[in-house]
Amino acid sequence: MSGMRNIAIIGLGMMGGSLALSIKKSMFDCHIIGIDIDGSTSQQALTAGIVDAVASELKLGVAEADLVVLATPVGVSIRLLYQLYELGFNGIVTDLGSTKQALCETAIKLPGLKFVGGHPMAGSEIVGIIGANGTIFENAPVIITPMSDTDQTSVDAVCLLWERLHAHITVMDPVEHDHVVSIVSHLPYVAAIATMNAAGNLAQEKFAMFSFAAGGFRDTTRIAAGDPTMWRDIFCTNRSRIMHSITELKSQLDVLEQALLSQDGAQLLDFIKQAQRRRKCAVVPNSNVGMA
Amino acid sequence: MSGMRNIAIIGLGMMGGSLALSIKKSMFDCHIIGIDIDGSTSQQALTAGIVDAVASELKLGVAEADLVVLATPVGVSIRLLYQLYELGFNGIVTDLGSTKQALCETAIKLPGLKFVGGHPMAGSEIVGIIGANGTIFENAPVIITPMSDTDQTSVDAVCLLWERLHAHITVMDPVEHDHVVSIVSHLPYVAAIATMNAAGNLAQEKFAMFSFAAGGFRDTTRIAAGDPTMWRDIFCTNRSRIMHSITELKSQLDVLEQALLSQDGAQLLDFIKQAQRRRKCAVVPNSNVGMA
Repeated sequence: MSGMRNIAIIGLGMMGGSLALSIKKSMFDCHIIGIDIDGSTSQQALTAGIVDAVASELKLGVAEADLVVLATPVGVSIRLLYQLYELGFNGIVTDLGSTKQALCETAIKLPGLKFVGGHPMAGSEIVGIIGANGTIFENAPVIITPMSDTDQTSVDAVCLLWERLHAHITVMDPVEHDHVVSIVSHLPYVAAIATMNAAGNLAQEKFAMFSFAAGGFRDTTRIAAGDPTMWRDIFCTNRSRIMHSITELKSQLDVLEQALLSQDGAQLLDFIKQAQRRRKCAVVPNSNVGMA
Repeated sequence: MSGMRNIAIIGLGMMGGSLALSIKKSMFDCHIIGIDIDGSTSQQALTAGIVDAVASELKLGVAEADLVVLATPVGVSIRLLYQLYELGFNGIVTDLGSTKQALCETAIKLPGLKFVGGHPMAGSEIVGIIGANGTIFENAPVIITPMSDTDQTSVDAVCLLWERLHAHITVMDPVEHDHVVSIVSHLPYVAAIATMNAAGNLAQEKFAMFSFAAGGFRDTTRIAAGDPTMWRDIFCTNRSRIMHSITELKSQLDVLEQALLSQDGAQLLDFIKQAQRRRKCAVVPNSNVGMA
C-alpha cells in the first residue's frame, strides 16, 4: 500500500492483535509496531510474530508510522488523540472502537490531526492477545465515520486498508453510527450482562446448576464475557442512547409480564411470534459475519 | 434393548426427528413409528428414512409400541397422556418437554399409565423436521423426573434409552427441574425475545440496520427463532417461576440504568465485572453440550 508501509497498533488486545495478524496475512509489505502498556503483552506479541517490533513509549512507537491504529478502550483512545496531537503526529490515525461520536468530536478540536473513525463489526469475547484471530475481519462489516472536514486522502487510505483485509466498508455519520450500534450491539450486551447477573442471583450463585444449561444460555450470555473496561467506556460514550435501549427492553419485559399475569395465551403467542418474525428479518441464516 | 424394540415418537419436529435419527444410529434393533398431525411431515420423515413407519392415528401408531415418546409442545403432551390412558396403553411413556411438573402431576392422576418425564437439554432453533440432527443428544445433559410412585422398571428403561444415545443422565424432582430450567433455559429465552422485540421497535422495523450486527446480536437473539407454540406452552406450564425470572431481570436492568443515570463509572464497572465473573463460573469453555 503506497504511503502506508509502517503501521503502529496501540493496544495489543484481542482487536489490536487480530488486526496485526490480518495485516500480516494480506499486506506483506507492511511493518507493524505494537505498543501496549503491558510490556509482557508486547513481548508475547513479538515472540508470536504477531507484530514486527514493539515500543514501550508512544513517541518512539509512532515516530516512523504512516498510520496509527487505536485498538484501546474508547476512553483511552480519546486521551491518545490528545497525546498524538501534542506530539505533532503527522500521519493518519484511525481506531477500532465501538462508539464514534465522542472520539470524532475530540479529533475535530485538534487541528491538523488526520483522524478517521473506524469500527469493524467483528471481534470475540476472548479478552487479550490470546483472542487474536487473523480471519475475523474477512467479510465483516466495517463502518468508517469521517466528519465533514475530514481529509479525504486519509479516508481513502483507511478504506484501502480495510479493502485489503476483505472487509465490507460502509461510510456513516458518527452520530448515526452510535445510534445504530446502540440497537444492534449495545442492546444485546445489556441483555447479556443483565441476564447473567439475574441468573447468578436466581441461582444464589450455585453455578453447578448451569451444567444443565444448553446452547441457549451459552449463546445468550456469550458477550457478557467481554472486556469490562472496553464496555464501561462504550456505556460512558453512548450513555443516553443505551439508556434509551434499556428503557425499551424493560418496556418489552413489561408487555411479556402483563401477558403472563393476565394469563393471556393469545397475547403471549403474539409477542413470541413477533420476536420470531423479527429475528428472521434481522438475521440472514449462515451470513458470514465476524463474531461478537 | 430387551423389551423395547418398538418405539413410537409422537411429533416429528426438530426434537422428535432428532431422537429418531439418534436411535437409528445407536440402536439398530429398534423399529420407529412416527406420528404427526401433519401428514406431509410424516411422509417427509418416512421418505428421508428418519422413521421406519408412520401412522396417522394415535391408536394405530401405539398399538405395537413398547415405548411412546411425546415430542410435542407440553400442552399437547398433557392431552396425549389422557388419550393414551383412555386407550389403555400398557407400555412406557416418556417425553422431551421443557417443563415437567404439569406433565408429571397429570400422569399421577392416571392410574396404571407408566409415565417417566424426561428433558434432554439440547435442541436447535431450527423449527420442524428440517432441523432434525442425530448428534445433538450425544454428551448432552438429560434430566429424568420420576415421581415417588413411578414404576422403577419404567425409569430404568428410559434411562437405558438415553445411555444408549450417549447422553448424561441426572434424576431430579419435577418441581426442582422446573425451578432450574426457569433460570438456565427460560430466562435466556425471555431475554432473547424481549431483546429482539426491543430492537425491532428501536430500529422502527428497518431491518437493513441489522446488516451491521455482528455475532453478539446473532447469538444473543438466536433462540428467539425457536418454535412459538412450544415456548407458549413452556410459559403456561412454568408461569410463576418465569415471572420471577422476569422480575429479577428487570431489577438487574434497573441497577444498570441507575449506574448510567448517576454516571457512576465504578458501579457500572462492578456490574459488568460481576456479569463477566459469573459467566466464567457458569459456562465452562468448549464444553460439549447440545445446542439450545
